[in-house]
Amino acid sequence: MDMIEMDEAVRIVLAHTEPVDVVALDLMDALGRTLAQDVRSDIDMPPFDKAMMDGYAVVGADVRNASRARPATLEVVEEIPAGTVPRVPVSAGKAARIMTGAPIPEGADTVVMVEDTVAEADGTRVKVLDVTETGKHIALLGEDVRRDQVVLEAGTLLRPTEIGILAAVGAVRPMVYRQPVVGVVATGSEIVEPEKAPAPGQIRNSNGYSMGAQVVRTGACARYLGIVEDDEAELKRVIGQGLEECDILMLSGGVSAGLYDLVQKTMREVGVEVFFDRIRMKPGKPLTFGTKGKKLVFGLPGNPVSSVVGLELLVRPAVRKMQRMGDLHRPVVKGRLVDGFRQAPGRKQFVPARSEQRDGLWQSRWVGHHGSADLFSLSQANSLFVVEAEAEALEAGAEVEIVLLTEW
Amino acid sequence: MDMIEMDEAVRIVLAHTEPVDVVALDLMDALGRTLAQDVRSDIDMPPFDKAMMDGYAVVGADVRNASRARPATLEVVEEIPAGTVPRVPVSAGKAARIMTGAPIPEGADTVVMVEDTVAEADGTRVKVLDVTETGKHIALLGEDVRRDQVVLEAGTLLRPTEIGILAAVGAVRPMVYRQPVVGVVATGSEIVEPEKAPAPGQIRNSNGYSMGAQVVRTGACARYLGIVEDDEAELKRVIGQGLEECDILMLSGGVSAGLYDLVQKTMREVGVEVFFDRIRMKPGKPLTFGTKGKKLVFGLPGNPVSSVVGLELLVRPAVRKMQRMGDLHRPVVKGRLVDGFRQAPGRKQFVPARSEQRDGLWQSRWVGHHGSADLFSLSQANSLFVVEAEAEALEAGAEVEIVLLTEW
Repeated sequence: MDMIEMDEAVRIVLAHTEPVDVVALDLMDALGRTLAQDVRSDIDMPPFDKAMMDGYAVVGADVRNASRARPATLEVVEEIPAGTVPRVPVSAGKAARIMTGAPIPEGADTVVMVEDTVAEADGTRVKVLDVTETGKHIALLGEDVRRDQVVLEAGTLLRPTEIGILAAVGAVRPMVYRQPVVGVVATGSEIVEPEKAPAPGQIRNSNGYSMGAQVVRTGACARYLGIVEDDEAELKRVIGQGLEECDILMLSGGVSAGLYDLVQKTMREVGVEVFFDRIRMKPGKPLTFGTKGKKLVFGLPGNPVSSVVGLELLVRPAVRKMQRMGDLHRPVVKGRLVDGFRQAPGRKQFVPARSEQRDGLWQSRWVGHHGSADLFSLSQANSLFVVEAEAEALEAGAEVEIVLLTEW
Repeated sequence: MDMIEMDEAVRIVLAHTEPVDVVALDLMDALGRTLAQDVRSDIDMPPFDKAMMDGYAVVGADVRNASRARPATLEVVEEIPAGTVPRVPVSAGKAARIMTGAPIPEGADTVVMVEDTVAEADGTRVKVLDVTETGKHIALLGEDVRRDQVVLEAGTLLRPTEIGILAAVGAVRPMVYRQPVVGVVATGSEIVEPEKAPAPGQIRNSNGYSMGAQVVRTGACARYLGIVEDDEAELKRVIGQGLEECDILMLSGGVSAGLYDLVQKTMREVGVEVFFDRIRMKPGKPLTFGTKGKKLVFGLPGNPVSSVVGLELLVRPAVRKMQRMGDLHRPVVKGRLVDGFRQAPGRKQFVPARSEQRDGLWQSRWVGHHGSADLFSLSQANSLFVVEAEAEALEAGAEVEIVLLTEW
């Protein structure tokens, strides 16, 4: 198979990404999901003409010329707390004491703020000390939303405010795209679970856990499927299980070329159609992608930086597209390198970096690496800067594109 | 009680915020928590001299002058896949086939990349076709991390990479600050649960749900404690329950002044010491804060914008300080207003806005509001711009501070 460019890899992955099923969820469970249908209001909002201030509901003509020198004195006919229904109409010369949120009584068309009034001691009369424009401090029935009006469109990401809107219109079981499930398998005979003390020649599975956590940060549900040794039958069983239980299966590659080949061979044997197996990029050139039905399978190389790049640039957009989210990709900004950077040209490189914005300008600094300790350097990174394939040396101050991984 | 400035309110809240308990969690549950103790490695990393490439482990002197014209021919004594232990020492004139991640055999000090070699058909001998510097492609035992070295310090936020580091050093039950629990109570006789059709004079409880979701976004665990009517006994019971079960209790205020007073009175009756009850800000001047022991109690006014401001500027920093997180506050940037903005001077105002960065410059635009539909405008907001108390009119292009709420 030909080695392909990263942009082409992204295009191929997204072209094979289908939406997941739609489910009805409880309101609080729907946070972070995407609406699968338009949501309409089942009520007018406000549902009645509503007082927007504590004060008095009056006939506007009565207070049009009120002043401290010539107050309008009105008879108080009723008190209307929020949550109650007015019983007594208000006519000329009368007023109802009213609380914010309460319905305006029949006949009233204006609310005078309590600050502009003085009540008589027994509460039967009130003096209005200032002008209030007719119609003031009232929200009219349906002025915000009409019954049956669409308040949230299909495709809307449900953040806290949208959860509030769903509650307001009584949509307590919204239809949303279900959270995709991403399975993580670590492969390699030398890998042991973290609770074990590694024997000579063994290392702990750190990659499976950091990838699982990264999956959670993409908004998907992570399912850890364990470590598979260099064993074809076991690999076949776990890939089968992953395809059954997950929407996306990620195999974090054994470090050896032999195991990598075995993973590819086994993927094909269980019926996965492979679309590419190498990307012209650093790190992580050997990166396999295939599908079986609607299920996506990624074979990622075993080192931590490759996992981050594969997950952020390929898997995360797929997780988002499965839920019909917008903004599939991490934001990319232009910025400048703090230090020079050299590479052997040939493949586009994604470099873990610490990027910060100063006076509106992004500056990016390679976090460095030494041998196998990429995990420790990565802990300093919040971004990746991109070095084009043909570049050999970038000077300090060179302009680069920076992929921001802020949430990550 | 005196009305206080927002900065002073933040200072008072944080001065009364104590760390929550420390718990041991499973690795994947620790994502997003903060370490409560230094974590040391229980092993050297690498745990042995390790091949960094697939190739041949050799004695450096044998390949120091190798070239295509004059290849070095070596006897292959063993094959060492990753995860196995070498058995045969390598001496001058010999080589061991070795895979990335495998231990270097005794006597070898250099790894030649497989790309620089040609193996004989039967695998017993290999020709080295290019120079390899002595020591190349080997990571030495302990070169990244020494046993007992601190790899993550107390106070570190556990993101995916740190979860991987914990796995690598065998810290499978890290001690972390437990996730704070924030209780949400909606108050008001006019409020009904969203699944009900509101009767005349009633509105649905949308605020309780949007606040609950916002609490989740602060990194805390949200506990919805329901609606309390304008009833002292019931209010006392729920505040008691909230103080029992939660670290922070938020009462979303009844819209009426009367209920608001009742909430304050009841807080005091159950033993809450109140530190302030009004902040010189818009929206949401009446904002109460008190403590009982280590528990924090906030009485927030009922409108959605006030809830957002109170939650983002006061509650979220407390949630973070309880876990000894850094960056307690939302990032604040300087930017310019797209449109002019007017206010009645007197209180610092936090205005829900849509802010975007263009060519490094932040631009901010009020999302507007009309009456009770703040929830719908808020859905467009990603930030708050700040208008100082004394300002009356800001022209288009005026510089303002912008509080970014991006995750929200």
